[in-house]
Amino acid sequence: MSTSLQPMPPEETVAVVGVGLIGGSLAAALKQRRLARRVIGVGRNRQRLETAHAAGLIDEVSTDLTQAARESQLLVVCTPVDRIVADVRQAAAAMSEGSLITDAGSVKGEICESLADLSAGPVTFIGSHPLAGSEKQGFEHASASLFEQKLCVLTPTAETPPQQLQRLHRFWEQMGMRTCELSAARHDAILAVTSHLPHAVAAALALLLDAEYRPFAASGFRDTTRIAAGDPELWTAIFQQNSPALIAALSRLEGEIASLKRILERRDAASLKNWLRQAKTSRDVLNLVPGKIDD
Amino acid sequence: MSTSLQPMPPEETVAVVGVGLIGGSLAAALKQRRLARRVIGVGRNRQRLETAHAAGLIDEVSTDLTQAARESQLLVVCTPVDRIVADVRQAAAAMSEGSLITDAGSVKGEICESLADLSAGPVTFIGSHPLAGSEKQGFEHASASLFEQKLCVLTPTAETPPQQLQRLHRFWEQMGMRTCELSAARHDAILAVTSHLPHAVAAALALLLDAEYRPFAASGFRDTTRIAAGDPELWTAIFQQNSPALIAALSRLEGEIASLKRILERRDAASLKNWLRQAKTSRDVLNLVPGKIDD
Repeated sequence: MSTSLQPMPPEETVAVVGVGLIGGSLAAALKQRRLARRVIGVGRNRQRLETAHAAGLIDEVSTDLTQAARESQLLVVCTPVDRIVADVRQAAAAMSEGSLITDAGSVKGEICESLADLSAGPVTFIGSHPLAGSEKQGFEHASASLFEQKLCVLTPTAETPPQQLQRLHRFWEQMGMRTCELSAARHDAILAVTSHLPHAVAAALALLLDAEYRPFAASGFRDTTRIAAGDPELWTAIFQQNSPALIAALSRLEGEIASLKRILERRDAASLKNWLRQAKTSRDVLNLVPGKIDD
Repeated sequence: MSTSLQPMPPEETVAVVGVGLIGGSLAAALKQRRLARRVIGVGRNRQRLETAHAAGLIDEVSTDLTQAARESQLLVVCTPVDRIVADVRQAAAAMSEGSLITDAGSVKGEICESLADLSAGPVTFIGSHPLAGSEKQGFEHASASLFEQKLCVLTPTAETPPQQLQRLHRFWEQMGMRTCELSAARHDAILAVTSHLPHAVAAALALLLDAEYRPFAASGFRDTTRIAAGDPELWTAIFQQNSPALIAALSRLEGEIASLKRILERRDAASLKNWLRQAKTSRDVLNLVPGKIDD
């Protein structure tokens, strides 16, 4: 983890590509914390951008990524994971030497491998994944505090210039985040278990809820399936890009379910209590150390 | 569903057996809404009962179930599901003719079958399951509003006297609940999917979270596993009593997981999006009709 003590001058112009929940919150935090002199919101739908502008999230709007990239020194791609590589390529071609590009994608392997040639500059790409979000979509739910106290994973390569890496750590830290570094492959293996598997399980549970059972779905069912309300388009792209790791995580879950079934079939109360107690212990630890990071 | 328009005189003395989260909340609601002239809290631990009394949840405390039952006209057993039958038997032996006993257990089949001879009176037992709760335990988390706007399932038999059934509907309705009737078997099949399966899945997910993955467990993981923090003793008894229905529900979940894995293995984006979209639709409906009941 990087700890910065020296103050950092604000970035001149930052472009945020994709002004949805994440991009909108990022833009709002940049402005509220005065981390950039100018924030350009880049998107495809001018009307949506104008609304975000009217809401005070961004200083300027642009539907021309190349033009916005040309005017920016730092650019954050917050588009869906299956569009990130193309957006980074287009931006990199327009930005001047020394510029930094990052993203906010939930899967890192495919993206960082495709963009490996941009590791060393002259325009540098470094992968980021701020672990913040919601099942809600759109900048209407954006919040300048979305990232506060949360963790941001950076996925540099061996070729990443140290000063650009340091700049990116500071960028997220000034947003109120803690940062850490992982290889893209390690990130994807972990997030398959901590994020993509819960989403898959929540969706599977939601699918099992027959219409006539709905009145009997109390807070436990609602909490456990809340994230299944996420955008199917976004999650299709995430699941596709991380499918080997997600398949492995699903297989581990199948193993746990199979052992629970065996315990139930032989009506083994001692093993059942032990299984539930271990699960409770594992879950309770999350409350005790809400955001601790040990890397 | 029963709709009562006539006012009901308050019960003379109500005993609440087991003053934990559910029993404590029930007692608090009885007092706040003036639904009983006197509320006796019955438990094994006198010190805990005295604390609940000092907190204003109950009027009197007793560690003698027989004595408390003798003085009560209505008695609600809020002990763990594996103790309910014995507590009801003990209370029934002491109560006078015309008295009503119910419970708050999460599984109904085994309990209602064991107590079938008490259906017709002179002291009547009718099963209840107020669908309200929390992963938290103890009367310290009790709230008089826990039951408001929630659903209570009643499981009468063919022998249940109509006036006692009506009395029980009114009891829960006056607590702010909606009520419905189901057979005990139907209740257990439904709750296996809406409550016991989510708990099992939350526990399985929590077990898969290796210690070094914890810092990467964001709000999605936390919500999806929240109920895994529930009391292992209570849930062991619930799972044991409903194991056939829970095993069937786990098998249905295994089917969904297997089909998701097949979709991921053949990288079938269209089927994946469709699967996620159906799950989202199913989950979104729960938000649109938060407490609708169609029975």
